Amino acid sequence: MAEVLFIGTGACVPSRERSLPCVAVRVKRDVVLFDCGEGSQRQIMVSPFSFMKVKAIFITHLHGDHFLGLPGLLQTMSLSGRKDDIILAGPEGFSDSVRSVLKACGGDIAYNMDIIDASDGDTFVFKEFIVKAFSTEHKVPSLGFALEENERRGEFNKAKAESLGIVPGPDFTKLQNGETVKGIRPEEVIGPSRRGPRIIYSGDTIRCASVVNMAKGAEVLIHEATYLSKDADLAGEHMHSTASDAASVAKEAGVSILFVTHMSNRYDDPSLIENECRKIFPNTVLANDLMLFTVK
Amino acid sequence: MAEVLFIGTGACVPSRERSLPCVAVRVKRDVVLFDCGEGSQRQIMVSPFSFMKVKAIFITHLHGDHFLGLPGLLQTMSLSGRKDDIILAGPEGFSDSVRSVLKACGGDIAYNMDIIDASDGDTFVFKEFIVKAFSTEHKVPSLGFALEENERRGEFNKAKAESLGIVPGPDFTKLQNGETVKGIRPEEVIGPSRRGPRIIYSGDTIRCASVVNMAKGAEVLIHEATYLSKDADLAGEHMHSTASDAASVAKEAGVSILFVTHMSNRYDDPSLIENECRKIFPNTVLANDLMLFTVK
Repeated sequence: MAEVLFIGTGACVPSRERSLPCVAVRVKRDVVLFDCGEGSQRQIMVSPFSFMKVKAIFITHLHGDHFLGLPGLLQTMSLSGRKDDIILAGPEGFSDSVRSVLKACGGDIAYNMDIIDASDGDTFVFKEFIVKAFSTEHKVPSLGFALEENERRGEFNKAKAESLGIVPGPDFTKLQNGETVKGIRPEEVIGPSRRGPRIIYSGDTIRCASVVNMAKGAEVLIHEATYLSKDADLAGEHMHSTASDAASVAKEAGVSILFVTHMSNRYDDPSLIENECRKIFPNTVLANDLMLFTVK
Repeated sequence: MAEVLFIGTGACVPSRERSLPCVAVRVKRDVVLFDCGEGSQRQIMVSPFSFMKVKAIFITHLHGDHFLGLPGLLQTMSLSGRKDDIILAGPEGFSDSVRSVLKACGGDIAYNMDIIDASDGDTFVFKEFIVKAFSTEHKVPSLGFALEENERRGEFNKAKAESLGIVPGPDFTKLQNGETVKGIRPEEVIGPSRRGPRIIYSGDTIRCASVVNMAKGAEVLIHEATYLSKDADLAGEHMHSTASDAASVAKEAGVSILFVTHMSNRYDDPSLIENECRKIFPNTVLANDLMLFTVK
């Protein structure tokens, strides 16, 4: 059961209300971060999540607002006694950038960092989930990320089990654990495995087919929506999405819920973004800092 | 009349209560920053100061907690339309570090940056004040900074002026403006120029003579006090000051007020630091985030 925590939901420049881009996903005890804008470590400190449980940090692209929180967080984890390895992944040029920033700001990191320049299709395997990188389209090399929880056991058909003479109780548990009971094999009463919930994070991008493809049938799509449609020319120039772009991706992909983030301080009222989305995709939620969503 | 704003008063790692090191000083409209830890730009946004008025940023040393807020702030000023030049100064290696961090995080800066590796004695001249760098003693090359407001006109001796036959009113103003009135020259009724108030910022350092020298008779000393005296061995190992070190510097230099900052989250109760200082130098104030002090 994944929990999505919006650490920072601003764009380019923070504001009183919004820290810079960072989304955390926690599955059981493990946390991964998508982007890590300046201030993310302090946001996590006021959230219910622990930065010491972060197993990996995925950076969508190398604009400062998406990754200048990374070196400080890495140093803080080290100063806080972290010994566990961490995976750091981002697009082409990422490892050089991380190493040069860390070199510039001193401070040894006392744990092992696996720093990776990731490409479309690269998959990172964790205990409870995988994370897959996919290409997006921005002004600099950019990636989106899809988190998919591990497969879940198929549904146990109680009625069928009882009709086959199994009495509710310990024998049910045995079947659910894969044992044959009184000649009845588990697969006779347990349906096919079900894929785990999927969470897609677009990063900064124009509306693009790769996000639609990755998000097909996903439980959660987190998509940037930097501009209103009336400013579509600016969105094009800066290679960002409009609210309508994000909503139409959600609609085409058939996701369960769309969160829009990367709120520009160009608009005094960010609910304009949400309203524009809802005309196309009603189940849209405007992400706010420290909002927590549990994926059922 | 300088105003000192404590932007961030933490040490090494931020906390819920404390952002990373940054002190702003405003004289009339001009602002300078001393250190610029991660999160400083957002702290300034919730303060009464404007980051667009920042004329210079002085970095004491290249540990991440003291300067990882710099690139984001520079980008934010650019995105906010800044055209004015800015001075950026820090110790040996500073310009290389700034350039490599800015290169790593993309984003053009649309104004001119004068990036300087400063040394002991270097002086920076502003409209209303000067800032002088001085050597301190930390684990890496480090500087402290002294801000001195411009000289003020000497005191006008009203009684003497009246005794010389000058009538209070426009003639007083003329004398104060440097004009001779009824044969009386201004210097006959105006005392010698008085130096402007001085504010000394230690940065991270062990107790050192250079801070005492620079702070002689200063109005304000802002000194780090990372440890209690009972942890003096750790202070020595990490080349930081204890509360007693800071207070004894203030006492020896004869400053008017001591602010202690760089509060470690090692101590649950930072007032222990303040109390230790006050035993040696009673006029000590523990700096807290967004505290504003006006230097009379």
